[in-house]
Amino acid sequence: MLNKQKKFILQENDIPTQWYNIQADMVNKPLPPLNPKTKQPVTAEDLSHIFSLECSKQELDTENRWIDIPEAVLDKYKYYRSTPLVRAYALEKALDTPAHIYFKNESVNPLGSHKLNSALAQCYYCKQEGTTNVTTETGAGQWGAALSYAAKIFGLEAAVYQVKISMQQKPYRSSIMRTFGATVEGSPSMSTRAGKDIITRDPHHQGSLGTAISEAIELATTTPNCKYTLGSVLNHVALHQTVIGLEAEKQMEMAGEYPDVVIACFGGGSNFGGLTFPFMRHTILEGRQTEYIAAEPSSCPKLTRGKFEYDFGDEAGYTPLLPMYTLGHDFKPANIHAGGLRYHGAGMIISQLAKDKLMHGVDIPQLEAFDAGILFSRTEGIIPAPESCHAIAATIREAQKCKESGEEKVILFNLSGHGLIDMTAYDSYLSGDLRNYNITDEEIADSLKDVPEV
Amino acid sequence: MLNKQKKFILQENDIPTQWYNIQADMVNKPLPPLNPKTKQPVTAEDLSHIFSLECSKQELDTENRWIDIPEAVLDKYKYYRSTPLVRAYALEKALDTPAHIYFKNESVNPLGSHKLNSALAQCYYCKQEGTTNVTTETGAGQWGAALSYAAKIFGLEAAVYQVKISMQQKPYRSSIMRTFGATVEGSPSMSTRAGKDIITRDPHHQGSLGTAISEAIELATTTPNCKYTLGSVLNHVALHQTVIGLEAEKQMEMAGEYPDVVIACFGGGSNFGGLTFPFMRHTILEGRQTEYIAAEPSSCPKLTRGKFEYDFGDEAGYTPLLPMYTLGHDFKPANIHAGGLRYHGAGMIISQLAKDKLMHGVDIPQLEAFDAGILFSRTEGIIPAPESCHAIAATIREAQKCKESGEEKVILFNLSGHGLIDMTAYDSYLSGDLRNYNITDEEIADSLKDVPEV
Repeated sequence: MLNKQKKFILQENDIPTQWYNIQADMVNKPLPPLNPKTKQPVTAEDLSHIFSLECSKQELDTENRWIDIPEAVLDKYKYYRSTPLVRAYALEKALDTPAHIYFKNESVNPLGSHKLNSALAQCYYCKQEGTTNVTTETGAGQWGAALSYAAKIFGLEAAVYQVKISMQQKPYRSSIMRTFGATVEGSPSMSTRAGKDIITRDPHHQGSLGTAISEAIELATTTPNCKYTLGSVLNHVALHQTVIGLEAEKQMEMAGEYPDVVIACFGGGSNFGGLTFPFMRHTILEGRQTEYIAAEPSSCPKLTRGKFEYDFGDEAGYTPLLPMYTLGHDFKPANIHAGGLRYHGAGMIISQLAKDKLMHGVDIPQLEAFDAGILFSRTEGIIPAPESCHAIAATIREAQKCKESGEEKVILFNLSGHGLIDMTAYDSYLSGDLRNYNITDEEIADSLKDVPEV
Repeated sequence: MLNKQKKFILQENDIPTQWYNIQADMVNKPLPPLNPKTKQPVTAEDLSHIFSLECSKQELDTENRWIDIPEAVLDKYKYYRSTPLVRAYALEKALDTPAHIYFKNESVNPLGSHKLNSALAQCYYCKQEGTTNVTTETGAGQWGAALSYAAKIFGLEAAVYQVKISMQQKPYRSSIMRTFGATVEGSPSMSTRAGKDIITRDPHHQGSLGTAISEAIELATTTPNCKYTLGSVLNHVALHQTVIGLEAEKQMEMAGEYPDVVIACFGGGSNFGGLTFPFMRHTILEGRQTEYIAAEPSSCPKLTRGKFEYDFGDEAGYTPLLPMYTLGHDFKPANIHAGGLRYHGAGMIISQLAKDKLMHGVDIPQLEAFDAGILFSRTEGIIPAPESCHAIAATIREAQKCKESGEEKVILFNLSGHGLIDMTAYDSYLSGDLRNYNITDEEIADSLKDVPEV
């Protein structure tokens, strides 16, 4: 391993100048989102009451394979991109595996995760269209932090609803958002109709991405000149994240390899789609054999145990009905530390791809995720975000299969963020307090009861 | 600013393979450290009772200008080096200055600061020489975290004494060290003779780097097969950090500029020396005019208000007597959040260079440091460590002078680390609770009374 190149970095002029829109290449397009009242497909104009018009168009764009990254966004990307592609020699050695393990290190983004890639784009479009205020939800806070910074540099005011339990688990993330000048509120809160309703029903509700989305949408739609922004789930968010996979593709070429397996953790799908879609186009268009694995928490298993249905994207039912693998929009995820994975549904594109068996999910128990995170820290020197620990755990499973079979597979995973703000989770693991959460089939069936009829 | 290159990165084979030993080029060499009993110069062999033999030799080496970086250390450097050199266009714009501001971004190191550069070297040498255990002190915890990781990957057990007040201010840093398998103890503690003596004299002692060094040295010298490692102050530590400046020199060349002013924050001198020494060799050897500014906290002003004397490096008096600008080895620094700058003395090389007027210090009040940190966060998107905020504040002062004079100076500073673990400090700033600390001349004179006679 001495003297071998460890990491592959693109020069600034090799950073992709377009995002890849997989919808253009999908054989079965995602089903359209529906207006919950009329059950008719929503239009970009409908969506633009909530989102910027440009993002609304991107959301439904099944025509254009390549979308230009606006110059001002590209300019901001250049501050921190490309992120390194790293060969994890030390992890390979610790696992004694013949597999070649690579990771795309999005944790070096200044806000600590891949989320900035879409936050910059969404804030830029809002600004261009004359919006002055943006709202959003955030779980672990990676998205909220990125959005707060992006809003600041594009001159927008930002209000963030952070999932209450995550706010308690990771108080520094709210501090980061406030450092960038954002307003932060724990969700469910008493500041919106949706929040009040949730608290009335369940005064001890710890919040979820679903509750925070409801509140952020309500604030956006009741505030003049204000748009809502979202950190995952939607097509345009995954679109912006494809800069990750497009870079990784060039960097794998620099390394002289091509991945047999591509892995990312899975909450709503932004980092998973961001890394995998550019590789998947070679599978769709050229039949290239690559396995795509979405690593979700066992306690929030929409891909592995959810149902493909039209469901709301939020707890209160403010969003259009989205065609997705879901556990039910009022599913209450357990208090795992991977706050970014505590979401009841899978993005529309990914749900369709999963249905078409182009990719699949695996479920990772919390303790296995942290076992993997500790091993990664002690070998590669980077403490991963609890979310990213799931991707590492899935990678380790694959690497161990290679050890058994002797196969020299090339595995690529996304290190979506670092865990330096999540140290309470590691404390809890090291002191033996961390535990797994089992979700019964009855619980899932019960929360699926509230999925609306279409 | 659109379309201009933002950052300059070296490919792995351009990373320096040697460190620069400025002692070889200094006209006036640093005075020798003395045995406190005999008042005779200590030898490398004397030092090797505490440190690894190789580091002990490097400490006193005034002959060899270039020292090879061991292959195994270089191999580990390649995981995260080169760090980017970034042109701070957004900060320049916010300041409306004609100055060109560059920063070397050591915050992308996986442990969050430059400290890893020396931790890897020190642990490597210890391992090579058959040591099994290492001890160290840490203030803010940047060094302790780096050392814990370096110890882990070179197969050593690590015990860290962390300054008590810093442990309370930044609890996540102890978690990080434990995640890498280290033992962490708050200093002053009851686990050493030195700690017990300090607590007996002052039960409310909040600790300082001086107390933690005493405890770590005592543990090293009373434990079989154990060496002490240090994160700053000493010559060999600054030597290992010169990889920063050597990279920056090549990167400034890529940017087509050469710095008129080079700035770093100043605790013991490791990040300051690391960045400035390679540039300073052109000042010493070729008379190149560059200004070197060490930004120290107003509340711990050894360069600007200390005295050049032989003094102990630690509170209990376990170290050799070191020739340095000092505030007295039992100086109790105020509880500023920049824990890494709470040290009573300046490194020996830097003290000599300051005496010879090759460089100078400026003192930065805590509030000015955080004003600068907030501005930097909101422009460049990186929340800086409280220590690094001092360098940014000094940079802003210089950039404002340029605005007044119209000079287009090139300013380079070291962003030694990020502040993501220091968010309580930012919380305190944002809520208006943060304050400055004034040190009177009497207080300094009083703590200088205990400097031993030579």
